[in-house]
Amino acid sequence: MEQQPKDKLPYSLNSKKVADATRMWLQKRGVTMEEIAELVLLLQKKYYPELTMEECIHNVEQVLSKREVQNAVLTGIQLDILAEQELLIPELQDMISHDEGLYGVDEILAFSIVNVYGSIGFTNYGYVDKLKPGVLERLNDKSLGPCNTFLDDIVGAVAASASSRIAHRKQTEREQERGEDTLGPDIVR
Amino acid sequence: MEQQPKDKLPYSLNSKKVADATRMWLQKRGVTMEEIAELVLLLQKKYYPELTMEECIHNVEQVLSKREVQNAVLTGIQLDILAEQELLIPELQDMISHDEGLYGVDEILAFSIVNVYGSIGFTNYGYVDKLKPGVLERLNDKSLGPCNTFLDDIVGAVAASASSRIAHRKQTEREQERGEDTLGPDIVR
Amino acid sequence: MEQQPKDKLPYSLNSKKVADATRMWLQKRGVTMEEIAELVLLLQKKYYPELTMEECIHNVEQVLSKREVQNAVLTGIQLDILAEQELLIPELQDMISHDEGLYGVDEILAFSIVNVYGSIGFTNYGYVDKLKPGVLERLNDKSLGPCNTFLDDIVGAVAASASSRIAHRKQTEREQERGEDTLGPDIVR
Amino acid sequence: MEQQPKDKLPYSLNSKKVADATRMWLQKRGVTMEEIAELVLLLQKKYYPELTMEECIHNVEQVLSKREVQNAVLTGIQLDILAEQELLIPELQDMISHDEGLYGVDEILAFSIVNVYGSIGFTNYGYVDKLKPGVLERLNDKSLGPCNTFLDDIVGAVAASASSRIAHRKQTEREQERGEDTLGPDIVR
Repeated sequence: MEQQPKDKLPYSLNSKKVADATRMWLQKRGVTMEEIAELVLLLQKKYYPELTMEECIHNVEQVLSKREVQNAVLTGIQLDILAEQELLIPELQDMISHDEGLYGVDEILAFSIVNVYGSIGFTNYGYVDKLKPGVLERLNDKSLGPCNTFLDDIVGAVAASASSRIAHRKQTEREQERGEDTLGPDIVR
Repeated sequence: MEQQPKDKLPYSLNSKKVADATRMWLQKRGVTMEEIAELVLLLQKKYYPELTMEECIHNVEQVLSKREVQNAVLTGIQLDILAEQELLIPELQDMISHDEGLYGVDEILAFSIVNVYGSIGFTNYGYVDKLKPGVLERLNDKSLGPCNTFLDDIVGAVAASASSRIAHRKQTEREQERGEDTLGPDIVR
Repeated sequence: MEQQPKDKLPYSLNSKKVADATRMWLQKRGVTMEEIAELVLLLQKKYYPELTMEECIHNVEQVLSKREVQNAVLTGIQLDILAEQELLIPELQDMISHDEGLYGVDEILAFSIVNVYGSIGFTNYGYVDKLKPGVLERLNDKSLGPCNTFLDDIVGAVAASASSRIAHRKQTEREQERGEDTLGPDIVR
Repeated sequence: MEQQPKDKLPYSLNSKKVADATRMWLQKRGVTMEEIAELVLLLQKKYYPELTMEECIHNVEQVLSKREVQNAVLTGIQLDILAEQELLIPELQDMISHDEGLYGVDEILAFSIVNVYGSIGFTNYGYVDKLKPGVLERLNDKSLGPCNTFLDDIVGAVAASASSRIAHRKQTEREQERGEDTLGPDIVR
């Protein structure tokens, strides 16, 4: 164990700070909880006609409370920002600032988000990523200035994950209504 | 090394037999190369208007020549067949024969196929799996008898992989046309 | 909505039955909670010397309460059983009953388990799957009769997931001890 | 199609430049082809006692010729460099520069490399990532100055992928020696 200089605390992960930074940076990059929730409503209202915006916002917030999600969001936004500042290795700069279709690391980070709620989110992610509804259309508009190569995939992934979360939870509600012996909140995360 | 009975050869993987079985079982389950190729054309004609059915069929065949793809296709079809024969553990039987939305192992096998051509196929897979165009609509029709819980996802994944393969190869063609020093066929698999 | 015959209830997922079947089938295949917990202790005692078997067992049980984990466990055990009964397509029968190294679907199912607790479990899974300590040595012993091609990977994956769960939770405990504003149980699943 | 200023060519991906940059940056960060090949030899000599360093180097080079591998290598090295330059968002800076165990994006990038050669590489990756043999021990030594949070996982992943590639190819060789109808080079990538 090495000694630490007096004015420098030893490193230790502060989960609250990482969580707060995630919310703050999404906001700074122009994405609101409501916009992500609208994607969720679009994906899920067909299956749950009574689903409300409040429920969607709550589920988006729960997805954003997961550590893996926060790490992927921050890393993706960071690469977008550095591409805007032209601080990247030239070959990477070129691919990220032009949203090169064969780059694929943006999809990889998005997928690490979707995975947290299991494989049932894969389809929803691919669907919104292809159709680019709502906020995704704006994020994907290359004429508007900011580089959102990672952010549009990340926002789609958070919406797909919130959709998976809702599907898992609605099943639990159904089973409780049928009076079945339930399993507690753990199965649905 | 144990002795083998005279009439039984020691096991050794025969890749040709696995490849042939994959093609044969897709056919037996009613899926033609042309139907998968039509999905590829649907996904890619927007980007490559000159793309032909012959090219799509060729790319589907190349995807089906990969070992991981063959293993996932055979395993998925196997589980569909056993569900039809009602030979599964009751809880699994119920989920697979009713294509339970929260089961998710069908998506996991599909994803192992898409992964072989990298993350750029994720989006195409999710898109066709949601919209169920062409052959996928028939495979997903629960009134028709056979259990295709795994097969519809697998066929969508093969089409998404062939689309990725085309995207990688078209880039190589473009670079060759520009007279750039090319990298040989290996980069595009 | 089609009419149902009187003696047959319409299908609806019963999560409790799936959870119970998972525990029951692990036991039937000869794997105890204690044996999986011992793998967890082996993986984690270096980082948390005070970790007890009780905590390890609790974390294994929590991992097994997740829907995706249950689906992967049941599907894998099912394929092992059918291989023993020689009910598979010949090419698949050959690969699974001989634990063919190039098959890989066993690793794919195992990975869908590890993924539920995020990428930090990848390393632990690979490590136990290579070294085959404790129960994994027995499960991997081809001379003993039963086919455990899927089961050994699944048990390693459950142990790796429980290790990830412990790592996430220990971090929360540390932050609570430091009097930091904590994030509630959701971040750690 | 927008007009381009005379002195600026329109963007188009140059695969050769990305490939060259990948090799150059690995070298700049102090990793040689030989060191990665030594990891491969360590992983595979048990299965193929006749395996040579030349074959291992060749397989590492083939892995590094894949587009997805290059993209992951460059992105990971980029984040290491930016962490050294302290140019990251503070919360991300803290996690990457201290190689936080709960960060996990380094494992995610590593996994996108391993995936290219299929699931059989998962185990080898986890094994070397845990034991840190050879070059990985040096890359993981926090006292040496450079930040290699991403690089050590990436190098382990390239070695695991080269091992998978060898396993697939050796199978083809065996089948050819047996005089079996072979499938051409495509199955083994």
